[in-house]
Amino acid sequence: MQPFISHLKQGVPLVDVGSMRALVNEVGIETFLVELSSKLEQDFARWQQFDKSPRYASHSESGVIELMPISDGQFFSCKYVNGHPKNTHVGLQTVAAFAVLADVATGYPILLSEMCLLTALRTAATSALVAKYLAPKNTSTLALIGNGAQSEFQALAFKALLGVSHVRLFDIDIKASQKVKKNLAGSGLQVDICSTVMQAIDGAQVITTCTADKRNATILSSDMVADGVHINAIGGDCPGKTELDAALLKRAQVFVEYEPQTRIEGDIQQLDESFAVTEFHQLVNGMMPGRVNEQQLTIFDGVGFALEDFSALNYVNELISKQASTRLDLITQQDDPRDLFSVLQASSAVQVAV
Amino acid sequence: MQPFISHLKQGVPLVDVGSMRALVNEVGIETFLVELSSKLEQDFARWQQFDKSPRYASHSESGVIELMPISDGQFFSCKYVNGHPKNTHVGLQTVAAFAVLADVATGYPILLSEMCLLTALRTAATSALVAKYLAPKNTSTLALIGNGAQSEFQALAFKALLGVSHVRLFDIDIKASQKVKKNLAGSGLQVDICSTVMQAIDGAQVITTCTADKRNATILSSDMVADGVHINAIGGDCPGKTELDAALLKRAQVFVEYEPQTRIEGDIQQLDESFAVTEFHQLVNGMMPGRVNEQQLTIFDGVGFALEDFSALNYVNELISKQASTRLDLITQQDDPRDLFSVLQASSAVQVAV
Repeated sequence: MQPFISHLKQGVPLVDVGSMRALVNEVGIETFLVELSSKLEQDFARWQQFDKSPRYASHSESGVIELMPISDGQFFSCKYVNGHPKNTHVGLQTVAAFAVLADVATGYPILLSEMCLLTALRTAATSALVAKYLAPKNTSTLALIGNGAQSEFQALAFKALLGVSHVRLFDIDIKASQKVKKNLAGSGLQVDICSTVMQAIDGAQVITTCTADKRNATILSSDMVADGVHINAIGGDCPGKTELDAALLKRAQVFVEYEPQTRIEGDIQQLDESFAVTEFHQLVNGMMPGRVNEQQLTIFDGVGFALEDFSALNYVNELISKQASTRLDLITQQDDPRDLFSVLQASSAVQVAV
Repeated sequence: MQPFISHLKQGVPLVDVGSMRALVNEVGIETFLVELSSKLEQDFARWQQFDKSPRYASHSESGVIELMPISDGQFFSCKYVNGHPKNTHVGLQTVAAFAVLADVATGYPILLSEMCLLTALRTAATSALVAKYLAPKNTSTLALIGNGAQSEFQALAFKALLGVSHVRLFDIDIKASQKVKKNLAGSGLQVDICSTVMQAIDGAQVITTCTADKRNATILSSDMVADGVHINAIGGDCPGKTELDAALLKRAQVFVEYEPQTRIEGDIQQLDESFAVTEFHQLVNGMMPGRVNEQQLTIFDGVGFALEDFSALNYVNELISKQASTRLDLITQQDDPRDLFSVLQASSAVQVAV
């Protein structure tokens, strides 16, 4: 039997929260973010190979449950992810995500992974990767507007990929900023808490907006932002949730992941369909230039695309392939595929290392 | 904290193959099938409450990977299932399925389950449930044409729900029939292996066709089948795969699960869209009659619908709620939802019973 087939018969590898924590700490979070962004760049470069579709969304009064499938013909991935803003009122996370990576040739799942941490990591790695093409030369200062779950990951990704040394924080709740500052102590970053958005963005070459409010807000208006900066707008990521002034968008060159999805979910949902945007893969492939001059105002209207989860799952899969992992007895293993019924007989129990 | 919220924070319950085997054996397979069909009947009765969509399919040269999502506003379920006919050549199953059941109010997954066994169980329970409405009175003999993985489950479901006492088997590979006969020894059913389809269906009140060939085949032609029987046609379940002669379909009254999906995947894919079919939920709700006379020829063109997985997952969820179960540490559990980064610190590790 081929090694890969034998591997498939040994159960579905599981990376739970504890395993992901161990993996990230073992690799080192900055190295993890750099390696992941390299994987993302390789996958964006072969954009045309992917079978892409907008996410499937099941809406309810309390939130949304989404499925994000994608395939490159060799691997298939699908993330389950919800968005329930009011979960915090009962002590739950607003986002509870997990994903499967599968082998297209056999249809077998080859990895089941938590996606709470991994989504934060891939989002930060994507932001920093995009900024490598669009941020001003010698970027040293990052403003983080909205200091929720994503902030520390953003700061470390921009440090690792762009050499950012200063981070300026603003949040309407200072406790959120204090949490970020505390978590980044020892990172080597100089972290300042600011009392206004203007103070935070003053002198920053890159501005990340990542606020939680689920409405059409204006975190940045056009008059607040000077030319020559890069805005990494990742908080406006579902219908009815935006962060940027329409005038600011119109002034800038806007980059997106996958246009059909961003038209629905991104900040550009405020604008007419005729407003031109550039898909990021075109920069990676050299079909379009990145930043063209010092005055250019660039905006990455990031909403999170299935390709990024795909890249992250494949990266994690490569990491765990070098070590023993927990495996789930999720697929029956009878010798004769037609004899499924025999699986109900206790004697047919297959030992799976867990 | 409410008990349910506390429950959500204790990890995602897992029913793997071993747990499913134990559950089915503990309940008893016939009781399991009867209780599951009761659950199915209740769910079909509230058909209008479900948010339904045709399945998502990602096709490749070697097979298909599908997602089957559905929600009733309280629970959301999604099954991952593939179809790879050539997997048997390398010693793998043709179908490797698992599913998630989630709480719509919070978006949290509440059950992760194997779906190889459970799909076979729900398919058989659905077939027998539909036959309760359509099979002739005093049905005692079931013909099973195609003796693959589904056969034993079909035989036991028809025994448990309709009182079938005789099963007549036919398969082009006699080894498949021998496997079924062996597995059903001790079930109380009289099982006969037949050498032709005609021999198998002679005197049977219900005929189940469940063949594996992925093409437009004619397992039953119109001249082979007398009036007054019920055909449970479940093998024609994807584009390009049918089992029944078009003339046979036209002679009968045809019942389906969810018309938009069956038009694409079922035996009726051979017929024009104008050919009238009846959705099964209409029988459950009394909007349409079941069998109306002894001469009627009825066909259930079953393809497997997400609702059936939903019912099965909810049934299993009720069963395991009475006992301790393995739980997966799949969702982060930090006290402050905004402090996701803290999860990377080892001291934040939450103990989950596994």
